Amino acid sequence: STFASEAGPRDQRIATTRLPMLSLPSTVRNNVVAGLGEFVGTFLFLFFSFSGTQIANSAPATTDEINGVVPPNVSVVFFIALVFGLSLMANVWAFYRVTGGLFNPVVTMALFLVGGLGAVRSIVVIIAQFLGGIAAAGVVSALFPGPMKVNTTLGGGANTAQGLFIEMFLTAELVFVVIMLASEKHKSTFLAPVGIGITFFLCELIGVYFTGGSLNPARSLGPAIVNTSFPKYFWIYWIGPILGSLLACGFYALLKSLRWRECNP
Amino acid sequence: STFASEAGPRDQRIATTRLPMLSLPSTVRNNVVAGLGEFVGTFLFLFFSFSGTQIANSAPATTDEINGVVPPNVSVVFFIALVFGLSLMANVWAFYRVTGGLFNPVVTMALFLVGGLGAVRSIVVIIAQFLGGIAAAGVVSALFPGPMKVNTTLGGGANTAQGLFIEMFLTAELVFVVIMLASEKHKSTFLAPVGIGITFFLCELIGVYFTGGSLNPARSLGPAIVNTSFPKYFWIYWIGPILGSLLACGFYALLKSLRWRECNP
Amino acid sequence: STFASEAGPRDQRIATTRLPMLSLPSTVRNNVVAGLGEFVGTFLFLFFSFSGTQIANSAPATTDEINGVVPPNVSVVFFIALVFGLSLMANVWAFYRVTGGLFNPVVTMALFLVGGLGAVRSIVVIIAQFLGGIAAAGVVSALFPGPMKVNTTLGGGANTAQGLFIEMFLTAELVFVVIMLASEKHKSTFLAPVGIGITFFLCELIGVYFTGGSLNPARSLGPAIVNTSFPKYFWIYWIGPILGSLLACGFYALLKSLRWRECNP
Amino acid sequence: STFASEAGPRDQRIATTRLPMLSLPSTVRNNVVAGLGEFVGTFLFLFFSFSGTQIANSAPATTDEINGVVPPNVSVVFFIALVFGLSLMANVWAFYRVTGGLFNPVVTMALFLVGGLGAVRSIVVIIAQFLGGIAAAGVVSALFPGPMKVNTTLGGGANTAQGLFIEMFLTAELVFVVIMLASEKHKSTFLAPVGIGITFFLCELIGVYFTGGSLNPARSLGPAIVNTSFPKYFWIYWIGPILGSLLACGFYALLKSLRWRECNP
Ligand SMILES: [Ca+2]
Ligand SMILES: [Ca+2]
Ligand SMILES: [Ca+2]
Ligand SMILES: [Ca+2]
Repeated sequence: STFASEAGPRDQRIATTRLPMLSLPSTVRNNVVAGLGEFVGTFLFLFFSFSGTQIANSAPATTDEINGVVPPNVSVVFFIALVFGLSLMANVWAFYRVTGGLFNPVVTMALFLVGGLGAVRSIVVIIAQFLGGIAAAGVVSALFPGPMKVNTTLGGGANTAQGLFIEMFLTAELVFVVIMLASEKHKSTFLAPVGIGITFFLCELIGVYFTGGSLNPARSLGPAIVNTSFPKYFWIYWIGPILGSLLACGFYALLKSLRWRECNP
Repeated sequence: STFASEAGPRDQRIATTRLPMLSLPSTVRNNVVAGLGEFVGTFLFLFFSFSGTQIANSAPATTDEINGVVPPNVSVVFFIALVFGLSLMANVWAFYRVTGGLFNPVVTMALFLVGGLGAVRSIVVIIAQFLGGIAAAGVVSALFPGPMKVNTTLGGGANTAQGLFIEMFLTAELVFVVIMLASEKHKSTFLAPVGIGITFFLCELIGVYFTGGSLNPARSLGPAIVNTSFPKYFWIYWIGPILGSLLACGFYALLKSLRWRECNP
Repeated sequence: STFASEAGPRDQRIATTRLPMLSLPSTVRNNVVAGLGEFVGTFLFLFFSFSGTQIANSAPATTDEINGVVPPNVSVVFFIALVFGLSLMANVWAFYRVTGGLFNPVVTMALFLVGGLGAVRSIVVIIAQFLGGIAAAGVVSALFPGPMKVNTTLGGGANTAQGLFIEMFLTAELVFVVIMLASEKHKSTFLAPVGIGITFFLCELIGVYFTGGSLNPARSLGPAIVNTSFPKYFWIYWIGPILGSLLACGFYALLKSLRWRECNP
Repeated sequence: STFASEAGPRDQRIATTRLPMLSLPSTVRNNVVAGLGEFVGTFLFLFFSFSGTQIANSAPATTDEINGVVPPNVSVVFFIALVFGLSLMANVWAFYRVTGGLFNPVVTMALFLVGGLGAVRSIVVIIAQFLGGIAAAGVVSALFPGPMKVNTTLGGGANTAQGLFIEMFLTAELVFVVIMLASEKHKSTFLAPVGIGITFFLCELIGVYFTGGSLNPARSLGPAIVNTSFPKYFWIYWIGPILGSLLACGFYALLKSLRWRECNP
């Protein structure tokens, strides 16, 4: 077979028939892999998340408004949260050893601040993540019948300030878990994709009803561009996740300054 | 006990009282094990998946059509997707060390292209998988009351082209995860059945409503034969999964040519 | 503290102040541990399973009969199956290193036939399992308001023969997974409680609607005695699981005679 | 970056520019870490649990009372139990290596009795857990629209005695699993957060409908203080968990005195 011929024992031969790209310096080539991997990974993560949200939001409404607020449908919230959680888990698991499977600009920012990710790599990765989010929204819009219904909006009677703090708290939880499970190396680091997916599932169970559960500027930007729909409070999907990421980094730095590893030896 | 007597210390004795089959050359015997294992494994995977689908599709409809489209019932979609995901997870786990637990002709094709599976073994296994799918459909049809309701059909207003691309994208995700978790060896390879089951659960959450979530020609062929029901778009359940598998193999080959292992050491 | 004083460094002292029971020969003492562990473990497994079933079966019926058959409520089936699956997973995990966490006479039978469990130990354990099932039914009946609603009965239009074969197939799956994950030692054996719980969850998703999903004579006997309610087809909850267990053992013996470990090295 | 500069190679420099707190004796500093970690961890565990409960309890009632009892809504019970289970799993995973991730005064008590946790550390941690519970209730009350609906109350027709014993049994299960999975060291100890989260999920599936599923005085006290709402049976949320924890410790001590490790070598 064609592809298998590139494996193992024939690597020597490939070295003499290499693609032009392989002549690039390894730093450049690694940034190409990181950018490509995060673009495709973010695309897949959000393609599945948006697709599931599209299905759940096509279910007929089961309840009327009460005092001007649509009450939550727990089955719909659960379905959307589950799809986001499983999609992050599956795709981080697949891309973990390629690029780390970040798929989120504010997670990237946190690993730049505390995890040793370089500045150039961070910028490459963040650009790829935004492009992946836009591509996912475009494909979902085209691939499924009817208008796309996956934009993040305030709900459940939450005002802008509440939405901002909800996004901040949920992102802080997600980023702190990423730092403790994936960045801090230990015996269960190979299971980090599972723990991160579970945590994101949890965050979405809380976030979906009130803010749409963004935690990720690339997740909110893609559908907003494709549907050209930017509510006036759209800034909370930038500032909330950024503040949450900084909060998690700050708490981690405090634990580190207190030498937490000595507490529970 | 009779069975236990064949274990451990008495293996010597068995060698002298062996079944005729054990006189076969080991290559033949291993192909018998592979064929038998994939037949039984695919049968069990689809027996449980079809049984759960049968139950969920026996629940009374809760909503009327809207503009000629039946809206999704998220509880029913969730139930069906869960049964497919858990059934793949459990049965891959059980058969992983016997045959690899492929249970799907296009996964077999991918491992032939990139994973070193041999040509003869691949053909044996694919035949066993189709037979397993037909057997599962036959048993489910006989074992449960009423007509069998597990055929893959288009829904949710999706047209044939959309159905084709949905099957392609979902299969690409599944096959890419199989390659990265099971074929590429690493520290969490022993957990591949869990990751593969989770990914298939995710794919079914998206696929069930629009295409029935096949991703697998053997899954679609079995019930179609038993119910002698082939819609005119039935070809998408062959071409969609094949294209998806090729797409995943191609992306993997691209990553490999870029030496992805050097990106995130 | 009193209990902690029995740990580690003071084990010497305990040896001189031992309980009378510790003067027993170790074989007897180990059988006491096995019997006690399986009694408490089976009690806990079924106490949680019955409690969750009691809750789900107290939910108001949402649909009328159709042609004399109550259609499935997928949310209720899911809830009951989830409680059974999680309860087996949690309690097997806790008791795995104590007694193996069998909790089921036909699983015990299978490990006697193929897993090297001794005859005396098997009998002790099976008696403990039946007593644990009766105790769990008694406590659930007393602890929760209203009559206990956890007996296994045929439903969904299934006749006795269909019920028998459904119980047989589901038990065969469960027992085969137990053999491959827990009895055959390998790298992920320490995760067997998770895989077994997932498989039982799957089996219950199929079984609850048609037969109540017994797979276990001790699970059916306890509530039948406490409610003194034995339907005339009650024998299927003995014969179905026994046949399923034998089927799994037979298939395993066939794989073993074919030297399955050489197939996929 | 500022934070990253504190990592690895520059630890030497930090030693000369240390924070005043680092001049504290290590015993004091470790107690500060334990108290801070358990405060923040308990806050996060309960913040997510309360938030999800708030959402589920805002869903409109689907059924009328039957004989003075509100029947269970299995979707709502499932949602609440899931949020509690995932929140414990995620946050124990994140804090496991910092403080052990106890988040519950009666779990702390059990580890004092059988797990070697010191008396001073236990008191520090228990105070932090109560403060974390109060803080979580206060933030949830402020952050989400409308009155907070997360207090633990009797339901489903359960009387005070039944509520007491339900709390006791559920806590005994949780504490026994904590002891066997986390305190007793073995090959899967690194997975204890997963097993503990699954077990708590199970306990909540049973507890939510009848008692609110406390198992934890800090979980009940926080909302009771913030809403200044103490039902006259509030004492069961203290005595039930304490009795359950003692029951689990007693059974563990019995197994230990019987040398359970020799039973299943
Ligand atoms: Ca569209
Ligand atoms: Ca039939
Ligand atoms: Ca009763
Ligand atoms: Ca409020």
